[in-house]
Amino acid sequence: MTPSPFSAVPGLLHGADYNPDQWLDRPDILARDIELMKKARVNCVSLGIFSWSALEPEEGVFRFEWMDRVIDSLYDAGISVDLATPSGARPAWLAEKYPEVLRVDREGRRHAFGGRHNHCLTSPVYRQKTALIDGMLAKRYGGHPGVVLWHIGNEFSGDCYCPLCKNAFREWLKKKYGTVEELNRRWWTSFWSHTYSSFDQVDPPSPLGETSIPSMQVDWRRFSTDQCASFIRNERKALRQYAPQPATINMMWSFLDYDYAVLAREVDFVSWDCYPRLKSGNNLMVLSEACMNHDYMRSLKDAPFLMMESTPSKVNWHTVNQLKRPGMHLTSSLLSVFCGSEGVMYFQWRKGRGGSEAFHGAVVGHDGREDTRVFRDVAHTGEMLEKLSSLKGAPVDPARVLILWDQQSRWCACFAQTGLGGRMDPLPVLQSHYLALFKKGVRVDLKGMDADLKSYDLVVCPETFQFREGFAERLRDYVRSGGHLFHTCFGGVVDGDDLCWLGPTPHGLTDVLGVRDPDLDALYPEEEVCIRLEDGQCFRVDQICEYPEEVTAPRILGVYDSDFMKGTPAFTYAPFGAGGAWYLAARPEQKGLDAVYGRILEALGIRGVWPRPLPEGVAALGRGQMVLVANLSGADASLGLEFPLTDLLTGAPVPDPLPANACAVIRKEDLKHA
Amino acid sequence: MTPSPFSAVPGLLHGADYNPDQWLDRPDILARDIELMKKARVNCVSLGIFSWSALEPEEGVFRFEWMDRVIDSLYDAGISVDLATPSGARPAWLAEKYPEVLRVDREGRRHAFGGRHNHCLTSPVYRQKTALIDGMLAKRYGGHPGVVLWHIGNEFSGDCYCPLCKNAFREWLKKKYGTVEELNRRWWTSFWSHTYSSFDQVDPPSPLGETSIPSMQVDWRRFSTDQCASFIRNERKALRQYAPQPATINMMWSFLDYDYAVLAREVDFVSWDCYPRLKSGNNLMVLSEACMNHDYMRSLKDAPFLMMESTPSKVNWHTVNQLKRPGMHLTSSLLSVFCGSEGVMYFQWRKGRGGSEAFHGAVVGHDGREDTRVFRDVAHTGEMLEKLSSLKGAPVDPARVLILWDQQSRWCACFAQTGLGGRMDPLPVLQSHYLALFKKGVRVDLKGMDADLKSYDLVVCPETFQFREGFAERLRDYVRSGGHLFHTCFGGVVDGDDLCWLGPTPHGLTDVLGVRDPDLDALYPEEEVCIRLEDGQCFRVDQICEYPEEVTAPRILGVYDSDFMKGTPAFTYAPFGAGGAWYLAARPEQKGLDAVYGRILEALGIRGVWPRPLPEGVAALGRGQMVLVANLSGADASLGLEFPLTDLLTGAPVPDPLPANACAVIRKEDLKHA
Amino acid sequence: MTPSPFSAVPGLLHGADYNPDQWLDRPDILARDIELMKKARVNCVSLGIFSWSALEPEEGVFRFEWMDRVIDSLYDAGISVDLATPSGARPAWLAEKYPEVLRVDREGRRHAFGGRHNHCLTSPVYRQKTALIDGMLAKRYGGHPGVVLWHIGNEFSGDCYCPLCKNAFREWLKKKYGTVEELNRRWWTSFWSHTYSSFDQVDPPSPLGETSIPSMQVDWRRFSTDQCASFIRNERKALRQYAPQPATINMMWSFLDYDYAVLAREVDFVSWDCYPRLKSGNNLMVLSEACMNHDYMRSLKDAPFLMMESTPSKVNWHTVNQLKRPGMHLTSSLLSVFCGSEGVMYFQWRKGRGGSEAFHGAVVGHDGREDTRVFRDVAHTGEMLEKLSSLKGAPVDPARVLILWDQQSRWCACFAQTGLGGRMDPLPVLQSHYLALFKKGVRVDLKGMDADLKSYDLVVCPETFQFREGFAERLRDYVRSGGHLFHTCFGGVVDGDDLCWLGPTPHGLTDVLGVRDPDLDALYPEEEVCIRLEDGQCFRVDQICEYPEEVTAPRILGVYDSDFMKGTPAFTYAPFGAGGAWYLAARPEQKGLDAVYGRILEALGIRGVWPRPLPEGVAALGRGQMVLVANLSGADASLGLEFPLTDLLTGAPVPDPLPANACAVIRKEDLKHA
Repeated sequence: MTPSPFSAVPGLLHGADYNPDQWLDRPDILARDIELMKKARVNCVSLGIFSWSALEPEEGVFRFEWMDRVIDSLYDAGISVDLATPSGARPAWLAEKYPEVLRVDREGRRHAFGGRHNHCLTSPVYRQKTALIDGMLAKRYGGHPGVVLWHIGNEFSGDCYCPLCKNAFREWLKKKYGTVEELNRRWWTSFWSHTYSSFDQVDPPSPLGETSIPSMQVDWRRFSTDQCASFIRNERKALRQYAPQPATINMMWSFLDYDYAVLAREVDFVSWDCYPRLKSGNNLMVLSEACMNHDYMRSLKDAPFLMMESTPSKVNWHTVNQLKRPGMHLTSSLLSVFCGSEGVMYFQWRKGRGGSEAFHGAVVGHDGREDTRVFRDVAHTGEMLEKLSSLKGAPVDPARVLILWDQQSRWCACFAQTGLGGRMDPLPVLQSHYLALFKKGVRVDLKGMDADLKSYDLVVCPETFQFREGFAERLRDYVRSGGHLFHTCFGGVVDGDDLCWLGPTPHGLTDVLGVRDPDLDALYPEEEVCIRLEDGQCFRVDQICEYPEEVTAPRILGVYDSDFMKGTPAFTYAPFGAGGAWYLAARPEQKGLDAVYGRILEALGIRGVWPRPLPEGVAALGRGQMVLVANLSGADASLGLEFPLTDLLTGAPVPDPLPANACAVIRKEDLKHA
Repeated sequence: MTPSPFSAVPGLLHGADYNPDQWLDRPDILARDIELMKKARVNCVSLGIFSWSALEPEEGVFRFEWMDRVIDSLYDAGISVDLATPSGARPAWLAEKYPEVLRVDREGRRHAFGGRHNHCLTSPVYRQKTALIDGMLAKRYGGHPGVVLWHIGNEFSGDCYCPLCKNAFREWLKKKYGTVEELNRRWWTSFWSHTYSSFDQVDPPSPLGETSIPSMQVDWRRFSTDQCASFIRNERKALRQYAPQPATINMMWSFLDYDYAVLAREVDFVSWDCYPRLKSGNNLMVLSEACMNHDYMRSLKDAPFLMMESTPSKVNWHTVNQLKRPGMHLTSSLLSVFCGSEGVMYFQWRKGRGGSEAFHGAVVGHDGREDTRVFRDVAHTGEMLEKLSSLKGAPVDPARVLILWDQQSRWCACFAQTGLGGRMDPLPVLQSHYLALFKKGVRVDLKGMDADLKSYDLVVCPETFQFREGFAERLRDYVRSGGHLFHTCFGGVVDGDDLCWLGPTPHGLTDVLGVRDPDLDALYPEEEVCIRLEDGQCFRVDQICEYPEEVTAPRILGVYDSDFMKGTPAFTYAPFGAGGAWYLAARPEQKGLDAVYGRILEALGIRGVWPRPLPEGVAALGRGQMVLVANLSGADASLGLEFPLTDLLTGAPVPDPLPANACAVIRKEDLKHA
Repeated sequence: MTPSPFSAVPGLLHGADYNPDQWLDRPDILARDIELMKKARVNCVSLGIFSWSALEPEEGVFRFEWMDRVIDSLYDAGISVDLATPSGARPAWLAEKYPEVLRVDREGRRHAFGGRHNHCLTSPVYRQKTALIDGMLAKRYGGHPGVVLWHIGNEFSGDCYCPLCKNAFREWLKKKYGTVEELNRRWWTSFWSHTYSSFDQVDPPSPLGETSIPSMQVDWRRFSTDQCASFIRNERKALRQYAPQPATINMMWSFLDYDYAVLAREVDFVSWDCYPRLKSGNNLMVLSEACMNHDYMRSLKDAPFLMMESTPSKVNWHTVNQLKRPGMHLTSSLLSVFCGSEGVMYFQWRKGRGGSEAFHGAVVGHDGREDTRVFRDVAHTGEMLEKLSSLKGAPVDPARVLILWDQQSRWCACFAQTGLGGRMDPLPVLQSHYLALFKKGVRVDLKGMDADLKSYDLVVCPETFQFREGFAERLRDYVRSGGHLFHTCFGGVVDGDDLCWLGPTPHGLTDVLGVRDPDLDALYPEEEVCIRLEDGQCFRVDQICEYPEEVTAPRILGVYDSDFMKGTPAFTYAPFGAGGAWYLAARPEQKGLDAVYGRILEALGIRGVWPRPLPEGVAALGRGQMVLVANLSGADASLGLEFPLTDLLTGAPVPDPLPANACAVIRKEDLKHA
């Protein structure tokens, strides 16, 4: 077992993105920062994320002295540094001198200098220049005891359509397909006469060119992921010459551009930036989605991760940017920890005076004071994290349920030209499944199609559109050997090349499920189609549903109750080998899916971490020897505790009812007796 | 009388677009196709629509062997071929070698290879290359007994702004206007100082250039129509050298880009692609719109046409793509036949594995089976078409009503800068008029301003914005000689150059209508303006209404009942010569227009084909010796039959009530006694 | 005191944009125009606004004869001319020969010839060519007794991103900042590593380049304003060589592109184009907004202005273009006069036959008649203006209230990246404040931050986001000396460079207001947050609200009544020196703001011009010795007059109730007794 990447910082991490380069002419403010950090119990900051022009104001002219001073001061104050490579934003001189580093958009327009995260990741100049400065940073700080982590770039995203990238794409295709005939076959270019006679004829997908080859679009995403991976590798190599500290990249919420399963291989640990759209009322759904992303991040490496960014108050880029309500800051922070985060980090430490994030929330505002609600919330959270320091390195409760989050399958669904106006992204469906389990306090892992299925009691394939070669066989083996599968509509349709499987669908599973050749239907918003379960409970389905041509599953657990398909099986169970498989033919409303999961979990004997049914809007998560209970309902929630439980955060009894937005941490041991 | 273009196929046509070039490596599938076609009673397929890269994989290298085999096999199986020229999608090599064939969009961007239907129709290279391959196809298959029709290109559309097209536009303008002074006068360029001093200064309309000359925009559409016509002529000439079979192009639903009245002259028969947005409930409106388009297609040449494409199940490009409900496939197919289609053709025979239409409905799905609901529906329709084969070549019931669908006037209305946010397209208004008549079982023709009016008892001008020179006079003569006119708001405003008529409006008709100088008003969505008829019935009007400065019509049949115009005449009748004219000042809600038509038809003694009032949501159409009755209401409909009628489709009595989505065919003779 | 710019025309001005160059081949129409103008009591027309190609059909070839004839004919008929420079639309030959005069858009695309108002205002060629023709016009008509005013260009707007403009921007920046270091400091470019090492690296803001530096975006607007100002100066200089008449530019409604306070310095008098979105019901709000703009125009130079354009019926560019309801034309016209307009001018005299404004309202329509509702309305208004001629030059009632309309602060708020989806434009907030006062008949001035505050009893800063250096001090002095301030949320945040003020906010006012460091919150549309006043009245707040960290104001007049901030002060008063200050923490619904103003006006003893509370939907404005009362409610309004008042318009008693859309003019003297 490798040592934890977080071991250099005692306790859970608490800190923020720190931009002292905006205040170099204000040493008083820099000194005050240290003082305030200590008051806020900050033990680690991310430094230098956008400091390139401060570090290298002209080509080849380097200025590290200010950073030396900052790192030393922090170290002296007992604050560790997560040191960033500055590749997230290039200096103006670099763009001026080497325009190739600027990205070309899908309409072929080379962008001008500005913004951030918008470099050509293929550009040899950009790779060389980032490696150069990374190497200098690594050399200078690789041995500094205060520098404990590396933060490569920032929120990698997007793609570039410049000549260099086009060429790299063609090379990538040549390597993958060998011959253009093979590419034609696997892209099905005989459709609309799109057959290529040379790789040179292939341009990336573009609204001003090709948009009608879904397989090409999926390959473009794979290619862009690979370019990003090799870009990261290039930076990491530059660091590794001199710097032994673990390195990460900060990932993003439900991100579509890249396959994080691929990028995760390039880093020592996973970190990500978590910005739920909180509001004043019930936040169960939005925080469940945050936890789904936390769980995905943990699952990427089956290891603790770090919530690298979150806001202490609000952001400035949602449509509505609301302040966190009292209690919410601690609660949302601890949810991350109980999903496996080794700390709580913020963007940003201090608000700048200008630029596009001057109004993004920060621990310290323009007035620089500590007697603010935000600062108090942060300091209190720091204090609570210290109380929970025994969680550091502790595993979360093992998941008995796996929900398939396969990014490649997701791309295939998103690009599938079925004309549902973009509504085929399975993410909202995953979220609905996750929510049903979250409400029951059931821990979930989220992994791609390559996951090892054996350790799970239940594998959920929610609209898993793509079944890559071998996956159906692995599912069959899994079920045959006693596993249980929950498969839904729009699944098992295309192969690894995003070509439709010939033969019956869901591909390879028709006998396992007892269902053959469902025909996908779409619903107008005003149409009401219902499923009725055996017990008479009815619920609506939304947007899409499918009707199998044949159902041989022995157990019909629910049928359509409306329109022409009245009576058609919609929820079934079939035993197979030592296990069995459920099939659900539609996207039900949440209460429907809740009922469906009630049935499935009961059949499998899976129970949540909370010893009784969770009140509406209350979540519970276990990690190590502790359980977090959090009231996300927006109103007081009665826990119905029959005798007092001690809240490890306060040392006092857990209040019952638990106030809105409040949380408590309880020893598992105590719960056993509850 | 020329022989029917469809005579080579016995009976009504039944078939589909067939793309064997996607399956050349699967001879088993090609063999199975023939077998399934016979089971589905297919007698004609459209072949080779996108086969260019299969036929000419490299420039000058031709491969016809596969097509020989396919045509021969089909012929051996008794299946005729509608052979396509491949000009709808060019091969990649052609785009690579001759970029001029790629279209330039209105923002001046040359598009890259991709998509389809996106060629420069002016490009000499593209015309030469299409003529070359067309000629080779014609030479090879012009004499094949299995090839019975030609299908030129596919769904022609759009325009190009490349230098070649700009230049062609200038030449077109020179030819039309002779001098730039004449162009200035007829485009009214003195407005905003837009006077040209040379034809070379004229660019096509563009959001990055000129958008403020409506006459130019109309001319651009005329020019684009003419370019398309000459492109078709070029292809047809190439075919005619060797191939005597009749040729067509497949047109589209309510199409705005071109004037089909012009394109129809270039083909031997009209065909079109019909994709109504069907849903699970009441489809009266959407299928009425389909029938309006059918009737327009028939009216283009006053002859039977062919529904070249329709879906056997669903499409993949509507916002919501719904499967056809049971019964709907036969019903919607027969509606086309009873509007004059000589057959029922589908897109597509078999779903491809990839490309953008892999999820478009097809007769045969990815599983390749025949025991599916879709296949059974198609086979059943084939069987019914055989039963109705006596309809082949039979005329539809003659129309006593003409609704003016004049594409040039439509363009003028669409480009009129009246600021109604694009709501001046008269198509929805035409649809509302058509629906009022459709509900009554009254057959309608739809033609442009050049139509011969004499044979109609009623000519409807719904928002006929443009009155080209001479049209008012022809309408006057028509009415004076005993005809009847129904004219509505926003009519008779501009002349052939899209310049406003000076003098009173509606131009040339003020004495015929007894109405002068209506001022056009617009309504906010929340405003309620009503018209009250003589009998007290009230209905709302929508979006626009107008108030004549003077009304001299002797019969005031309805008045405004709201706002400041309360009491102003809104629906009038004036006798004129041996005929008379109705005038309606607004866009009424449907029930209002229904009432208005009730009044008009009663006055003219026009009755529908059904012997009594049609139940809500039920349509009836007559052709030859038969009447189709179709229940589009989404629910059972009581026909109130007093004695049994035989359904020619089943040989059994027509069910009463008629189930939702069901239809029946009855001998006219039988109806006489009903 | 300089003489009034309008003195050459006796009485209030009444007239229209006149485009005889569209009818040069129709002398009958030109003759008829004069005849109709006299009937409509027109005494001034704006001539030649888009006549460049008629005046200079080829480069260097000039044709003034037609204009000579038109001006002479008008003069003979007693109609004065407001003569335009033709710079609003260039001829085609100019664009063809000198492409640099065509604008480049923010995506770097040089536009083609077309449209209007779309020139590069930097282009030396365009400046030279406009100066040349302006000089020739001035020389020829500067001494003509019929030419009384000059109209420079038309509705200046927009910006250009061509190389010439980019370079001019860099020069402008160099002049402003001196060194690039200073620019970096004041643009806060250390954020996201955007530090420039040379002015040459700075491009204007663009969606394809830099959008993340708000200070740059504000500077770009300042620069564009300055370019426009110097363009106007260039034209005016060309005129002044020969022409002594006063000159203006016609400004626009709530315009964002430029700072009119800067442009107003370039003209002799202010004029503007007023196009409210009137509808059939209650127009209080939209006409209050029109009056707010009128008052802003008057305030720009503290002098009477001219409503240069308005429509006699409808426009053609709103989404819904509705005809004016009976009575509305006179009423909306007189509102302008009672806000200080020296006349009522229309766009347009006669509808053209083509071009984009053929359907814009006009005094004379395509039928050329005078017996139309529109013509009668216009002629009647002309008659009424003659009756009110004593108002010419009379001051409006002096305003005791100043609402701050500071365009620079507005830009800062609009570009502030707070993520409220563009809802930070304070204009709607200003409108809401103005409306509260308008409903009470209280006259308002609207000026920028440089205004002299002394003469006002109340200064309102509605979301005055920017406090430029010195403004807070001036406000303090004003209040200390006995003035009263009403300050609302989102105020006093940034400095003159659009950088956030450090230290407590609202900057410089915390002790004046007794409020410190409000934290801005945003509300979801479905969230209901209320403020409760002392008297128990409650009202909702909208979109944003803020919560001060500290409130020391002694008078808490209202508190939040919902959500977590329940009980937090939301409306306060603090005395300061001899004056005092109100603070309001949110955007209330209108009835809430009405109540707040009720409280404030009562405290200050400010009363409206009407001697009693105005009925709902009725407005009253005083000017000279007269008061206009106008019923904008859309329904009859009872004035509750206790004895008859004479309407100076009719000589008859003011009708009570006053009909919808009607107005009356009453001698102030008479009102004293009312």
